Amino acid sequence: MSLRETMGRKLKQSASKVDSFIYEILKPRRPKALYDAARYIIEAGGKRLRPYLVLKSCELVGGDAEDAIPFAAALEILHNFTLIHDDIMDNDDLRRGVSTVHARWGLPIGIASGDLLFAKVYEAITTAPSALLCSSVKACIERVTDAALAICEGQVLDISFPHLSDVSEEDYYLMIGRKTAALFKACSEIGAIVGGGSPKEVDLLGSYAWNAGVAFQIVDDYLGATSDEETLGKPVGSDLREGKKTLIIIHALKHASPKEREIIDHVLGVENASPVDIEAACEILRRLGSFSHALEGARRYGEEAKRMLDSFPDSDAKQDLLDLVDYFMERTY
Amino acid sequence: MSLRETMGRKLKQSASKVDSFIYEILKPRRPKALYDAARYIIEAGGKRLRPYLVLKSCELVGGDAEDAIPFAAALEILHNFTLIHDDIMDNDDLRRGVSTVHARWGLPIGIASGDLLFAKVYEAITTAPSALLCSSVKACIERVTDAALAICEGQVLDISFPHLSDVSEEDYYLMIGRKTAALFKACSEIGAIVGGGSPKEVDLLGSYAWNAGVAFQIVDDYLGATSDEETLGKPVGSDLREGKKTLIIIHALKHASPKEREIIDHVLGVENASPVDIEAACEILRRLGSFSHALEGARRYGEEAKRMLDSFPDSDAKQDLLDLVDYFMERTY
Repeated sequence: MSLRETMGRKLKQSASKVDSFIYEILKPRRPKALYDAARYIIEAGGKRLRPYLVLKSCELVGGDAEDAIPFAAALEILHNFTLIHDDIMDNDDLRRGVSTVHARWGLPIGIASGDLLFAKVYEAITTAPSALLCSSVKACIERVTDAALAICEGQVLDISFPHLSDVSEEDYYLMIGRKTAALFKACSEIGAIVGGGSPKEVDLLGSYAWNAGVAFQIVDDYLGATSDEETLGKPVGSDLREGKKTLIIIHALKHASPKEREIIDHVLGVENASPVDIEAACEILRRLGSFSHALEGARRYGEEAKRMLDSFPDSDAKQDLLDLVDYFMERTY
Repeated sequence: MSLRETMGRKLKQSASKVDSFIYEILKPRRPKALYDAARYIIEAGGKRLRPYLVLKSCELVGGDAEDAIPFAAALEILHNFTLIHDDIMDNDDLRRGVSTVHARWGLPIGIASGDLLFAKVYEAITTAPSALLCSSVKACIERVTDAALAICEGQVLDISFPHLSDVSEEDYYLMIGRKTAALFKACSEIGAIVGGGSPKEVDLLGSYAWNAGVAFQIVDDYLGATSDEETLGKPVGSDLREGKKTLIIIHALKHASPKEREIIDHVLGVENASPVDIEAACEILRRLGSFSHALEGARRYGEEAKRMLDSFPDSDAKQDLLDLVDYFMERTY
């Protein structure tokens, strides 16, 4: 079985218990449309990477993954809340191959269902039936909250970048650190806290997940620029049309000749750029080595992530977390 | 000194310490626009009723109001988060006499700054330096979260009502119970918890604040239909134009003759209704006794609120909470 298949199976397995918890906590109340919209985004799919990080990190430090389920659910709910609001801010009509929440239910329900999910994050944590120390619950709430703040900051940086001409690689890494990696970090830290890990273990796992998150986001941006519509669940070249400043674009803009630059500018941030022009720009990105440059960055962070697990004794959970990083990278092959 | 002046002074006094805490926790980080927008709505004004409820409820049960400041700040921040998102959902451009956040910074920053404030609610609570029992902090977080969920539900009910022809008084009370009174309730409960009140005291104060919140919202709707633009901070007749189903409107629609109904329908939910038509509709509402009916409802809930404090021994804090209800009602004189 390939890594992709194995990981797919493992992710599904760990997702099923977490999903039951999520659907239980999102049981419809009045007004029904609000709860329908909130569940819809979660039912629409997603790989449940964040719950996986929580559960596996809990196991790695010797905890019982069962105790971590409400926390895993909370972090997946947090992720989905940000997706709903991001889709509104980015004006995206498609996600996971189906209509986005606001495209289907309208702007007010879109905003409100995101807010509802945000509140449900904390409900999931405070109703967790585990016999956790109260101070651990507080530590988890602090980490969830820090991640939520980082995501807000990262998202606003992300949407401000298309309007800036001089976005550096440093800016990009700062942005995805907040928008993506901070939540990954919170997942593994919280899993480790719930599992009773030492402060050192919590830190190492947080660092593992942060680096893995950076690698994941670079790969995600890479796939966003190279996949077909069916794989993406949204039109090819969306990121280019939206003028997103990915690592690929930042590299290309830095190294393009004036003529190449012109071809890129012809589609970057141009909402109605034609497929032919998109392909011409991608050809330039390939020629400049911008795709390989981005993958090189992803690989570096992926390796750093794995190194963070060096001091942990071998275990199934450790292997699963190492495999997860390879799985991120394998998506690009 | 009139009650209005006395209360105005007391509210300002209790607000100053809470505001310092709020501005400290909202110290700008990158991206600046996000924090500017989040602080802007709070700087734009507001009476700080919710912090007042927290502090006075804490005092009433014998606690030190100083301990409750971070919680009071959290609940005011929560309130302001909901204002930002509500203004987007209601498509309102003015609030407190100035541009709304999204009207000034655009939709994405509007959404993100609301989300940021929501996260800051929990940051304020978890960074509270008080020597509170951990279980009390958890109880406060549960109550804040319940209130946030109720507000989401109430807001979606509120925006769904204009599209429904058969909204009953019961529906209205359900809606404002969630949209407004639930947060009032959380404020007093949390104040009482932080102050070390008994479960019975927490319940009574919660009930006081819930009833006071219902009275407050009815009065607010009343003022929304009767005040001039300067007092309101937004155009006269906004609620009518938006088709809001207030207690006043529900009463009027129930008792209007077909001809009167026609005049009301001429402005209700009609965005560009003229001032003359608005005034004609208000004349009908007056004639039908709809305004008095609403005020009667407010008075009933106000009295019920005060009754909840009967079993508490006399104190300055008790008098302040009794006065607060009178102050709500006095706004209508």
